[in-house]
Amino acid sequence: MNIEKYPSKLLENAVNEFSKLPGIGRKSALRLVLHLLRRDASEVNTFGNSLIQLRNEIKHCMVCHNISDTEICQICANPARNTSVICVVENIRDVMSVENTQQYNGLYHVLGGIISPMDGIGPSDLEIDSLVKRVETGDVTEVILALSTTMEGDTTNFYIYRKLKGKEVKITTLARGVSVGDDLEYTDEITLGRSLVNRVNYESSLGK
Amino acid sequence: MNIEKYPSKLLENAVNEFSKLPGIGRKSALRLVLHLLRRDASEVNTFGNSLIQLRNEIKHCMVCHNISDTEICQICANPARNTSVICVVENIRDVMSVENTQQYNGLYHVLGGIISPMDGIGPSDLEIDSLVKRVETGDVTEVILALSTTMEGDTTNFYIYRKLKGKEVKITTLARGVSVGDDLEYTDEITLGRSLVNRVNYESSLGK
Repeated sequence: MNIEKYPSKLLENAVNEFSKLPGIGRKSALRLVLHLLRRDASEVNTFGNSLIQLRNEIKHCMVCHNISDTEICQICANPARNTSVICVVENIRDVMSVENTQQYNGLYHVLGGIISPMDGIGPSDLEIDSLVKRVETGDVTEVILALSTTMEGDTTNFYIYRKLKGKEVKITTLARGVSVGDDLEYTDEITLGRSLVNRVNYESSLGK
Repeated sequence: MNIEKYPSKLLENAVNEFSKLPGIGRKSALRLVLHLLRRDASEVNTFGNSLIQLRNEIKHCMVCHNISDTEICQICANPARNTSVICVVENIRDVMSVENTQQYNGLYHVLGGIISPMDGIGPSDLEIDSLVKRVETGDVTEVILALSTTMEGDTTNFYIYRKLKGKEVKITTLARGVSVGDDLEYTDEITLGRSLVNRVNYESSLGK
C-alpha cells in the first residue's frame, strides 16, 4: 500500500533529493517540492544555484578553519580583535553561538569535530596540530576550551590540554553552573555541585 | 542579541533560500545548509540541479492537468484505465492519495485549487471549463467529485454540479462516514449522521 507512485520522474528525483536531508521525510519532501512548483522559475533557479555555489565556492579560513568567502576569515582579519586569545570550538555553529553572546573579542579555532572513537574520529582527523602550531608562535597568551560537556568533549579537552601543557599559555574552560533564569530544584546535581565549587564573588557577578 | 552574523555570504544566501520554504525556520535552514557542506560536491550539485530541472522542465498533462514529464500523463495515456469515469480532485497530491488506495481505475481531472473568495480564487481560476469540455465529448459516463469536505469544497462541488446538470453523465461524490478503525463515541455528529443516512447493505460492505 505504501509504494508511492509519482506522476513524474522529475518530481520523484526532487523528492528523493530533499528526503536525503536530515529530519525531512518523504511526505515533507513532497510538500516542499510542490511548494517550489508553485513558485516562479527564477526563484527556484536562484535557490538551486545558491546551493551549488555554496558547496563549490566556499572556503575554510587558513588560520582558524572557520568557513569563509576569503582565504582568511572576517574574524581573523579584523584588526579590532584580540589576537592573543583563542577559543577552541567543535564546529562553525559554535563560533556563531559564541559570537551571538557579544561577550568575546578574541579569535577562534574550529576543530571540525571532537574525538569520538565510536564514530572513528581520532585526534588526527581534527585540526589539533594546527592549533599547537598557532600557540607555538608565542603570540597567544590564553586558550579557552569551549567544547560540549559530554564524554567526547571532555576527552578532547584533555587531549588538547596535554598537547599544550608546558607551553607558555594559560588554558581555561567555560564556567559550568546554573543557567540564568533556572530554578535550583530543576538543576541536576553535577551542575549544581560544580557551581558551588566554582562559586564567584557576589560583587564580581554584578559586573557586566 | 538576535542579529545573526554568518561567517560567509554564500552561507547566508543558502540559509535565506532554505528558510523561504514552508515550515523551515532560520535555525533549521542553517542545520540543513551545514549538512550540505559536509556532503560531496557532486551530491550537492545533483540536488541543486534536480530542483532547477524540476521547475523548468515539468509539464502539465493536456487532458487532466496532472503534472507529468510528457504532454499526456501516464494515467491518461494508459490503455488499461477506464476512460469513462473522471475523478475530480483539487491538486496533484490528491491524485497520489487516490492512486495509493489502488481502488480506482478511471481518469482524473485536477482543478488546481478550490473556489475560495477569501483567497481571491474564483471558478475562472480553476480548470472547470476544460472539465465541462471533457464531459461534452460524450465518452464520460460518471464524474466523481472528490474535493475536501470544507465549505470551499462543498461550494466547488455545487458549482461543478450545476455546470454538468442536464448533461448525460452521472455525478457522484465520495461516501462520508465513520473512518475504518474509529470508535463511534469519538466520531463527530455530522459524520455519524451522514453514515446513518447513507447506510449500506451489510452484505455489500463485506465485498472488497
